Amino acid sequence: MISVQEALDTLLASLPVTPSEEVTLAEANGRVLAEPILAPFDSPRFDNSSMDGFAVRSDDVHGASRQKSKSLLVAGDIPAGKSASTTLQPGHTMRIMTGAAMPAGADTVVPVEDTDAHGQTGAALPAVVQIFASGGAGAYVRPAGQDFKAGEPLLAAGTRLRPQEIALCAMLGVAELNVHRKPRVAVFSSGDELLPPGEKLQPGKIYETNSFTLCGLVESAGGEAILLGTAKDTLADVKAYLEGALQAGADLILSTAGVSVGSYDFVREAVESEGRIDGWQVNMRPGRPFTFGEYRGLPFVGLPGNPASAFVGFEVFLRPALHKMGGVGAWQRRVVRARVMDTVESDGRESYLRVLINSHPREWQVYLTGHQGSGNLYSLVQAQALLQVPAGVKKIRAKSWVNVWPL
Amino acid sequence: MISVQEALDTLLASLPVTPSEEVTLAEANGRVLAEPILAPFDSPRFDNSSMDGFAVRSDDVHGASRQKSKSLLVAGDIPAGKSASTTLQPGHTMRIMTGAAMPAGADTVVPVEDTDAHGQTGAALPAVVQIFASGGAGAYVRPAGQDFKAGEPLLAAGTRLRPQEIALCAMLGVAELNVHRKPRVAVFSSGDELLPPGEKLQPGKIYETNSFTLCGLVESAGGEAILLGTAKDTLADVKAYLEGALQAGADLILSTAGVSVGSYDFVREAVESEGRIDGWQVNMRPGRPFTFGEYRGLPFVGLPGNPASAFVGFEVFLRPALHKMGGVGAWQRRVVRARVMDTVESDGRESYLRVLINSHPREWQVYLTGHQGSGNLYSLVQAQALLQVPAGVKKIRAKSWVNVWPL
Repeated sequence: MISVQEALDTLLASLPVTPSEEVTLAEANGRVLAEPILAPFDSPRFDNSSMDGFAVRSDDVHGASRQKSKSLLVAGDIPAGKSASTTLQPGHTMRIMTGAAMPAGADTVVPVEDTDAHGQTGAALPAVVQIFASGGAGAYVRPAGQDFKAGEPLLAAGTRLRPQEIALCAMLGVAELNVHRKPRVAVFSSGDELLPPGEKLQPGKIYETNSFTLCGLVESAGGEAILLGTAKDTLADVKAYLEGALQAGADLILSTAGVSVGSYDFVREAVESEGRIDGWQVNMRPGRPFTFGEYRGLPFVGLPGNPASAFVGFEVFLRPALHKMGGVGAWQRRVVRARVMDTVESDGRESYLRVLINSHPREWQVYLTGHQGSGNLYSLVQAQALLQVPAGVKKIRAKSWVNVWPL
Repeated sequence: MISVQEALDTLLASLPVTPSEEVTLAEANGRVLAEPILAPFDSPRFDNSSMDGFAVRSDDVHGASRQKSKSLLVAGDIPAGKSASTTLQPGHTMRIMTGAAMPAGADTVVPVEDTDAHGQTGAALPAVVQIFASGGAGAYVRPAGQDFKAGEPLLAAGTRLRPQEIALCAMLGVAELNVHRKPRVAVFSSGDELLPPGEKLQPGKIYETNSFTLCGLVESAGGEAILLGTAKDTLADVKAYLEGALQAGADLILSTAGVSVGSYDFVREAVESEGRIDGWQVNMRPGRPFTFGEYRGLPFVGLPGNPASAFVGFEVFLRPALHKMGGVGAWQRRVVRARVMDTVESDGRESYLRVLINSHPREWQVYLTGHQGSGNLYSLVQAQALLQVPAGVKKIRAKSWVNVWPL
């Protein structure tokens, strides 16, 4: 019996990281940077206005109010995307748009709402403007280099790109990115009892479900799922599926069922015919039997066939594995503290229980979804989180604080 | 000035829900059910074994142990997918695989590990088996109807489908689902200063970023983004983009910038030429100016042009809006309690601050990312959550508990 952490460490140490490829920004959402992004320039690049208004010398408008406005001559107009060619002289102002470069000589902006030019959309440039307020030197000016300086590392290699990271790259003028190829995971199940949905049900048969769960989970972890289908319980058929994974260019083979001690399970034999396999008894539930190995050099993972076991096995082992294979430097699971409202009995194994979240103003309260049998797919559908019961714990009293993994 | 909740309620009440369409299970991940799924049968459908082992009559194996094993005649073999045609007689057993139907007469399963047949993969059926343990009546049997009963509503209309919901549909034999069409959101920005990344930078210009952020966010909220591009600051060009949204079959137009009080902002005028627009001053920061209306009957939302304002405006208003348009019944944001480690000053508006999460064993601690200027895209990249400062609050002392929205 090995611990969950030991099994995970062994798995992560054995898996390769995918090579990199170039993609455009439009294709980069969710991908993982293969090289760092450094700032090519200061940001903002130049002092600029944070409001539509009038660029002024702060000394000229000191103490301005609605009762005691200051009158300035309008010496120019600086639309966004333009810059002034002359220096602002005392007693003068220039109209300026949000984002436009501050003219030399000006050190503050008066928002248009604080002038008598307010409400004149598209109007001609006035000759004189009345200023009703002043925020002092620096007000409504974004100074050059305030956000970051040229040369600063902004995004590390191994960063998974969200929309805001893509936008940052756009802001830097970077149109193509070097990212890791998505890890390709070939998924198959095995078992003579499994039918694809859509076919007519026959006595003693059930519809196959794990490949649907696993393909969706693979994609949610940044992988590309290659659905191979369901192998029959023969050595030849299972070998054909393993060969199919190789031909599809997979980085990992992920199989469910067919790895227990049953007489009709040929997956182990098929993998071992041209590779090796380790059956781990991991100190966890559900999902104890977990197999890891390689077939003709391609990493192989076998998850239990029960729906909840396969799901938990994926969350515990495969999700971190796919982030690692996809190039993420130090993936961290988001764990939330919650109060469990049921008394939980456990058998001392590290356990993952399906729970509902009731979000109170000041805490998350979680409830068991019902019976936690590993064949109970419906409880997975009800579950909003997994509650982690540490190894060695046999009882958690109601209202105790626990760790949950939101799903 | 209206409250965030008031603005959100008005927006949500005005938006349509998309019609439904049929998709296959393979296409259904992330989609929203347009009709409920009822259980067509009990689950499990028949009493079945939860282990590979031997189906027995519990009376026959009562008190069995390694020291005092019970010997049974093997009367048959029930592979997964098969069922026994005869009733199990006293003193007999049948070999049974995980998931296979229990034979009549048997009321418990002895796992193969607890018999002398352990370790005989693919072996011929033994004539006699020694039983070393007994869990009592019902052990390792999943009774019919344990998970759900025929007719029970399993998935409500308005459920967003995760991999496990797809798997449940597969289990029910449902191969096609009636789901809402993804809401199509036409995204454009406007401003003469904006260049697409890849073009050579010119003085006073900046690269356009908001459309990258917004398209990615639209997809993360279950929408389909239609990127129209960047309109020039002319009435004709902005109108051409609005027409482009109509031609693209959009359900919503989402625009950034061009809606402030600036002289070069023609979006309002263009929308009003064939529709109406309301400029809301929402009591929030960043993202105060928010416009909502319609152009030739198509809903229109205008977000501020500053990167952080556009982002927060999306998270506060558009994310709930897209879930609603996409058919989700009662979408709820996941809010986590955290302890803020900096003292936070606010101006009384409902505020959304960018924070880093430091996950301690017993709590989340959050830190401000640095200056919270609405033009600071880099702080959005650093942010792992938004900290919500309620309206009316001007100061939050360090180490207070706050609500955060994980990003």
